[in-house]
Amino acid sequence: MALILGIDPGSRHTGYGLVEHVGNRSRAVAFGTISTSHKEMPPRLGEIFAGIDQVVKEYGPAEVSIEKVFMARNADSALKLGQARGAAIAAVMQASIPVFEYSARQVKQAVVGKGSAEKIQVGEMVRHLLGLDKRPQEDAADALAIALCHAHMRVSLARMAGATAVRNRRIR
Amino acid sequence: MALILGIDPGSRHTGYGLVEHVGNRSRAVAFGTISTSHKEMPPRLGEIFAGIDQVVKEYGPAEVSIEKVFMARNADSALKLGQARGAAIAAVMQASIPVFEYSARQVKQAVVGKGSAEKIQVGEMVRHLLGLDKRPQEDAADALAIALCHAHMRVSLARMAGATAVRNRRIR
Repeated sequence: MALILGIDPGSRHTGYGLVEHVGNRSRAVAFGTISTSHKEMPPRLGEIFAGIDQVVKEYGPAEVSIEKVFMARNADSALKLGQARGAAIAAVMQASIPVFEYSARQVKQAVVGKGSAEKIQVGEMVRHLLGLDKRPQEDAADALAIALCHAHMRVSLARMAGATAVRNRRIR
Repeated sequence: MALILGIDPGSRHTGYGLVEHVGNRSRAVAFGTISTSHKEMPPRLGEIFAGIDQVVKEYGPAEVSIEKVFMARNADSALKLGQARGAAIAAVMQASIPVFEYSARQVKQAVVGKGSAEKIQVGEMVRHLLGLDKRPQEDAADALAIALCHAHMRVSLARMAGATAVRNRRIR
């Protein structure tokens, strides 16, 4: 099945995780963190763009999943997060890969089954669902959770489409 | 002299302006606005990235100047502006062009001679300094002002470096 890239952007650490869904099991193809080294924001954005660009070129994901931010803590952190997000999404868009956005609540609901789950529970479920030996670093775990959320949504949508097709056949 | 690209990013309209400084006069090489057409943010960021990428490839600016945002009005607008800024700066960084940031106050001071100048005064001075027939559209005018600010700073820095060199020679 289609390879899905989940991205958890941040101006210091941007997590990424590639998930493949085979049958009713998901497996982690690769995951990691792009950590910026510069003090100034423009070169940091260059590092985020180049990092995602490299991941996209190396693995060729079919679809990208990213967390939708509804409200940031404050204007300053929103500006930083926004810039990181803009650089990451630009790298995906220039490769013409469709981007899907999910709220933090949707991601937690899909992975843990509870929209109000704690961060550590998300990491633990990511480890369990993907059969990993240990819990990935936090940003990578979040990125894998976002990829898993989209993988689940795709399966649900495919089932719904199938059910609709069956129903339509019966009606006819 | 070096061609300078000024950028005024925004999720709906991103202004750009290319300024060339010859002798003690500046001239506008090109300017305009990249207006996004999509409703969703990811494809909009793709449009901003592609637009700046095209301008960079067509004119090959030596340096890029962009406004430094200290504090946005609120977290929501900061997130939108941040993403637009991230996509625009990513396009510049992947072309390995250095980016210089100036505060709105520095831009107004350089162009109008008054850090608290009104937006319309900035547009009027941009028109005057670049010998344009009419005032450019607001986002393009802001981008030209940001480019002019960097052009002025470069000249001042070069003068200071020259003065320092002369002084050093005298000391020796």
